[in-house]
Amino acid sequence: MKKLRIAVIGLGVVGTGFLTLLDEKKEVLEDKYDLTYDVVAVCDKMRGSIYNPDGLDVSLILKESPMADGLEGTRGLSSFDIIKKPEVDVVIEATPTNLKTGGVGLEHARRALSAGKHFISTNKAPPAIAYKELTDIAKNNNVYYGFEGTILSGTPAISLAIHGLPASEFKSIRGVLNGTTNFILERMENDGMDFDEALLLAQSKGYAEADPSSDIDGWDVCAKVVIMANNMLGSNMTPDDVEVRGLRNIGLSDVEAAKKKKMRIKMVGSLTRKDNGGIKACVVPELVDRSDPLYHVHGVTNALVFDTDTTDTVTVMGPGAGGRSAGYAMLYDLVEMHRHRKRLY
Amino acid sequence: MKKLRIAVIGLGVVGTGFLTLLDEKKEVLEDKYDLTYDVVAVCDKMRGSIYNPDGLDVSLILKESPMADGLEGTRGLSSFDIIKKPEVDVVIEATPTNLKTGGVGLEHARRALSAGKHFISTNKAPPAIAYKELTDIAKNNNVYYGFEGTILSGTPAISLAIHGLPASEFKSIRGVLNGTTNFILERMENDGMDFDEALLLAQSKGYAEADPSSDIDGWDVCAKVVIMANNMLGSNMTPDDVEVRGLRNIGLSDVEAAKKKKMRIKMVGSLTRKDNGGIKACVVPELVDRSDPLYHVHGVTNALVFDTDTTDTVTVMGPGAGGRSAGYAMLYDLVEMHRHRKRLY
Repeated sequence: MKKLRIAVIGLGVVGTGFLTLLDEKKEVLEDKYDLTYDVVAVCDKMRGSIYNPDGLDVSLILKESPMADGLEGTRGLSSFDIIKKPEVDVVIEATPTNLKTGGVGLEHARRALSAGKHFISTNKAPPAIAYKELTDIAKNNNVYYGFEGTILSGTPAISLAIHGLPASEFKSIRGVLNGTTNFILERMENDGMDFDEALLLAQSKGYAEADPSSDIDGWDVCAKVVIMANNMLGSNMTPDDVEVRGLRNIGLSDVEAAKKKKMRIKMVGSLTRKDNGGIKACVVPELVDRSDPLYHVHGVTNALVFDTDTTDTVTVMGPGAGGRSAGYAMLYDLVEMHRHRKRLY
Repeated sequence: MKKLRIAVIGLGVVGTGFLTLLDEKKEVLEDKYDLTYDVVAVCDKMRGSIYNPDGLDVSLILKESPMADGLEGTRGLSSFDIIKKPEVDVVIEATPTNLKTGGVGLEHARRALSAGKHFISTNKAPPAIAYKELTDIAKNNNVYYGFEGTILSGTPAISLAIHGLPASEFKSIRGVLNGTTNFILERMENDGMDFDEALLLAQSKGYAEADPSSDIDGWDVCAKVVIMANNMLGSNMTPDDVEVRGLRNIGLSDVEAAKKKKMRIKMVGSLTRKDNGGIKACVVPELVDRSDPLYHVHGVTNALVFDTDTTDTVTVMGPGAGGRSAGYAMLYDLVEMHRHRKRLY
């Protein structure tokens, strides 16, 4: 099968995590999946861009900090220019999530899919804001739109729901979907820290951003809940349809009161089918007891619990963040895209 | 796409679980997966058999206890006769596991795959005893051999390892893979029962067989460990290669000593890559602590923990037995087979 020509937009921890794994797994991709590739373009806001239809040396991209010595190709193209190139088959994109406007990530998604390119991204904004629009474009252009990394990072969550549980209906989906808030709650519970102390610690460990609002006010989980509603429950939801209550009103006394009842407070994103066929979507701090798999989700681990009509309750648990894990999610999507491509072309 | 012609061999709880789900999900299978079917034969040691190439009414099969009124077709054919029929495309098989000889299940697998039929079964003996032989026949004849239900029943375990974690290497796979022993250990720990009492209770609840050896001596888990080694680690292992220590030597005092250390004894099936490239395969009662996901596996729930080289540790947890869940595993395989078939034919 023809070599895949890959463009990578965004070379932060996630983009380089992907490239590292792609390089590490070159042989197994070819031997096991008949997947061969060239990386023909990389583009990064800080490092600039380089494009060469004959392929770039991935080890040099990973080594050099400014996109400089040793790489031959056209420099200075914008991400939009690169997406347009006929020599690009698939765009791998890892830009920051901007839930308000969709940001440049939404524009990348629109342009790539409209140009008939497969598009794989860990950016939560495009599928949270414009799920139907983007999946419709992908369908009409017979290309793959992959966003496995938006839910539970490299832990195969969408894969499990869509591929592993076919023909199942989910009565509910509940999850601990944000490592930062889970870490903060655990520090309050185990170490008696108050909220601000625990947040500072999370920031010093690099879990929480300088502006932690996306995590602690629940917007990060909100985006994930919307993506799951649309992808796993066939809904057509936007962030406005989700009841979101962040963590700011949770004090140490709440955490300690829960502990006394042998329960825990967890920041839970949930989707529940209502009797009228609708879906209730929430992101709220919930009291959970020991019998709940979410009770046992520690640190920055994430988990999802599917209540199915076919095989009872299935839980999947694993990393919810990290460059290598998120990069792996994009490698998963690349293999999945390739499986689809073998069938389509 | 042409209707799939299905034969079901074995109408115990698993076979009827499958037929019930097949009937329930008829519309979604057609709408979502373009999968249409006729059940052309059913065959059961107790209820006899009936064959009709034009299709049988599944609701009548599920209703009538002896295979009798209302169904038209040829009666009295053996399972071997049915497998040979050119009008059968896929054989769904749920016969009891016989790890010593492979039993009739192994013969069904051999004959169906050799005759170019897709073969889907929850019987653990054939893939545990003859993995390479059977997968080779399947490969040579371009047919699908499905055994998702042998590991974690309908919880998508093989699906997760093979489809959800592509290009990953597993440094280890560890699991609580037997609900009966997990139930017994939990009764000892929580209710202070001794082993014999807890076993009796498990038997009275229908979890353990009258002859409980397969569960408590570890042979059930041993079979699963071998299947995982061959399927997920590319090994070529047989049950003789597994170190198996059952539960009979575990007394209440051991369970209580573990509890004092804030640990638990769990019956763990495990596969670990050794430095020399080999694989260590064990089924032993293990002391596990709270940080181990297996510590939190309760009752008859099963779980598997994959330690990967791509996305850290991924855990999947869910039902490990039950007619509906095991039946669902075969429905999963039917859909998966159909996905392959769409590509192959």
